[in-house]
Amino acid sequence: MNYRMIGRIIALILAVEAVFLLPPMLISFADGASLAGMAFVYTFFIALALSLCFTELGRGARPGFYAREGLVSVGLGWILMSLVGALPFVFSGEIPRFIDALFEIVSGFTTTGASIITELGIGIQSRGILFWRSFSHWLGGMGVLVFLLAVVPISGRSDGFTVHLLRAESPGPNVGKLVPRMRRTAVILYMLYIALTAANILFLLLGGMNWFDAVCTAFGTAGTSGFAVRATSLGEYSPYLQWVTTVFMLLFGVNFTLYYLLLMRNVRDVLRDEELRLYLGIFLLSTVMIVLNIRRRFDGLGETVRHAAFAASSIMTTTGFATVDFDQWPALSKTVLFCLMLVGASAGSTGGGLKVSRLLLLLKSMGRNIRQLLRPNKVQSIRLNGQPIPEQIMDGTNAYLATYMLLFFGSLILVSLDGFSLDTNLSAVAACFNNIGPGFAMVGPTGNYAAYSILSKLVLILDMLIGRLEIFPILVLFSPSAWKR
Amino acid sequence: MNYRMIGRIIALILAVEAVFLLPPMLISFADGASLAGMAFVYTFFIALALSLCFTELGRGARPGFYAREGLVSVGLGWILMSLVGALPFVFSGEIPRFIDALFEIVSGFTTTGASIITELGIGIQSRGILFWRSFSHWLGGMGVLVFLLAVVPISGRSDGFTVHLLRAESPGPNVGKLVPRMRRTAVILYMLYIALTAANILFLLLGGMNWFDAVCTAFGTAGTSGFAVRATSLGEYSPYLQWVTTVFMLLFGVNFTLYYLLLMRNVRDVLRDEELRLYLGIFLLSTVMIVLNIRRRFDGLGETVRHAAFAASSIMTTTGFATVDFDQWPALSKTVLFCLMLVGASAGSTGGGLKVSRLLLLLKSMGRNIRQLLRPNKVQSIRLNGQPIPEQIMDGTNAYLATYMLLFFGSLILVSLDGFSLDTNLSAVAACFNNIGPGFAMVGPTGNYAAYSILSKLVLILDMLIGRLEIFPILVLFSPSAWKR
Repeated sequence: MNYRMIGRIIALILAVEAVFLLPPMLISFADGASLAGMAFVYTFFIALALSLCFTELGRGARPGFYAREGLVSVGLGWILMSLVGALPFVFSGEIPRFIDALFEIVSGFTTTGASIITELGIGIQSRGILFWRSFSHWLGGMGVLVFLLAVVPISGRSDGFTVHLLRAESPGPNVGKLVPRMRRTAVILYMLYIALTAANILFLLLGGMNWFDAVCTAFGTAGTSGFAVRATSLGEYSPYLQWVTTVFMLLFGVNFTLYYLLLMRNVRDVLRDEELRLYLGIFLLSTVMIVLNIRRRFDGLGETVRHAAFAASSIMTTTGFATVDFDQWPALSKTVLFCLMLVGASAGSTGGGLKVSRLLLLLKSMGRNIRQLLRPNKVQSIRLNGQPIPEQIMDGTNAYLATYMLLFFGSLILVSLDGFSLDTNLSAVAACFNNIGPGFAMVGPTGNYAAYSILSKLVLILDMLIGRLEIFPILVLFSPSAWKR
Repeated sequence: MNYRMIGRIIALILAVEAVFLLPPMLISFADGASLAGMAFVYTFFIALALSLCFTELGRGARPGFYAREGLVSVGLGWILMSLVGALPFVFSGEIPRFIDALFEIVSGFTTTGASIITELGIGIQSRGILFWRSFSHWLGGMGVLVFLLAVVPISGRSDGFTVHLLRAESPGPNVGKLVPRMRRTAVILYMLYIALTAANILFLLLGGMNWFDAVCTAFGTAGTSGFAVRATSLGEYSPYLQWVTTVFMLLFGVNFTLYYLLLMRNVRDVLRDEELRLYLGIFLLSTVMIVLNIRRRFDGLGETVRHAAFAASSIMTTTGFATVDFDQWPALSKTVLFCLMLVGASAGSTGGGLKVSRLLLLLKSMGRNIRQLLRPNKVQSIRLNGQPIPEQIMDGTNAYLATYMLLFFGSLILVSLDGFSLDTNLSAVAACFNNIGPGFAMVGPTGNYAAYSILSKLVLILDMLIGRLEIFPILVLFSPSAWKR
């Protein structure tokens, strides 16, 4: 294991984090909230000091950077970034217990949006702290390492280096190679991400939302994350603003490669993309089912469709915003939402969950299995968008599901030690694992995670990290063979 | 597709069923319950007539019997057997609606034990009908085709013929080849099954249970099924009888190959068997967790351990008997039981669920995945009991899990149309899919499935069949390519 190289990367991650602490620091001082402001100042220096320590540890790194190093850098990097990122909450006294602050920031970085805050609102929390929560979503959405690769020159880097880091941090079965050189990929991804976020802010401002709410809401939408700045989530905004958010959540749940293809004017391939079709198909079908199920709860079809589409988009893209308390909806709607929680968004988007492309591969693998049972001697290959899928990716997809299920039920047992209902625990684990945020019952849209014990919070923190980084970067940290020389 | 050959097999299945209708017929007439007795007489002749029709259809069958024919025979055979087996309930008027009668008998044959009967007991139902319910468990436990292969000579059969039928009907990733000739395997399996059932009856009689209860309870235990003859399931029997049942449920959840090895005095291989170790390990761990969780609910440790061990054994082996209403237990115990529902018993036993050996393979595949990520260039193989597992079986196991999950959630959505709680629906689908019987809330040990709509009952009927036959024999019936010539 190339420990020194890992040290250098962690040093850079912490340096990036220090820079990102500056905007909330400025907002706090501008608001005259000096307690919050000083909390960011202290954290800034701690991040900087740690970054210098790791730079020192990483001095004289020999070349050689493989999958192992990539996974460990990403896993450790995210954990350290979270430990430091929790400090402003504690120092400012707005989330005094460290475990709660850690839960909140991990929920932020992993774009989950699950909260332990029992009373939320501008005035209860300072704007700097609220901004930091939302900003962590935006940073975590595209990934801090993707950012690093896009902007920071790292000496001695090879293409393998970039590939291994990008692979370990990006969601979905495989990273589509947009352009031959990986660094350009990272730059293009971030440009698209910034442009879409800016468009989202603009549309919200046009609807009369104030600057602070618009920026924070757009951050939560862009990361498909779900921290809102108001206690009612998006419930008190106008129908127009809710519709804008529905559309942008959906847009951020699309594979970013498709936007690149659109830029290249390759509309045909985009329209033919099987994942996109299934993604939109599932969204429309779910919306229709929910509309039929809740049609007697609201005045008129318009309102019903708005709330149904919002909830379907919010849960499927794993954002977790809410316009109404969908925990009060009838069984069918809740079950549809529960299934959407597990499916998640597209690969290569900021959304979490199992990913639509994995579902597509699993469906195709199921079909092949049946054909193979019927005709054992015929070799059957699986195609996606007309391209045959290598067996290695099929095996990986299946093994991913298996690992996912095992970790899911392991977490469920540990969390159920607290004695809350099966509804609560099942949806809490599903919501954290898939980076959604709210679940049902106690952790529903009007509830929060505050009542869980320290052990359960630790389990859910790990679940959020495992969900965001797609299991393996965190899991390898627990594997003895990762640490063998 | 060799339709004629399939016709012959279905004819034989119906003939076997006709013979098996005779014992409950005799019991009914002996009891003077002529209505129930005549119901069995009518059904007997219907089964016989259908069998003759299928014999006629199967006349002049050409040889050639492959996996496709095996799957379709098993799938169609089980469905027809169930349609006919439901008739005595309807004719006797004891379950007047056909959909309910079908639910009850499918639950019987698939060894599920889920019931739509709202009031159960000797006197409410006639003994003949109660016997038929329990007897269907015993027949379904080992499989009607295994029975067929053991006792009926079929002309023109080859070893391939036997293999494809056995494979399609037997639970678990693969059928252990006990002895080179498949027919002897079937005979040995049935001999072991009869011997263990007889031992179970004997132990129950020694505890003072009456003949009828002992035979029916042993049938429910042998099939790991769960229909009891009393409203309280096993709640009103003595602690000794409950312990006997705990032990025998566990014994019937063991891979029967191990009993054959014991007969061959190969104790070493049995003790080293990884599936057996994991099976017993999970049982002990679950029991300890439940004991710690419910220790304040009962008087003394003895009673607590008895109820905890009974519930763990009953749910893990997918039997579904109950001594107390475990739906009232705290969250941890219910979550442990929910996870046990999904794990299920050993491959090659009469139990359902995912099977311990599949869990073992999934755990090993997860470990390999991590090692492979860390060292991509090293070829890693998976070993079970020291033997390397072919990649084909690994792929099959993973694809099985994927298919299982997709069908599970599809069923959940359809069942939730009825508007019952997520707890109820989730555990109902889990309990039917894994052939357990009772779930939680409305379908808990003191509840039943009567309130579900016809659509939900049909979905759950399919789930029970899919669960018992391990998905594919039923799924291929819906695949167009199965019916191509």
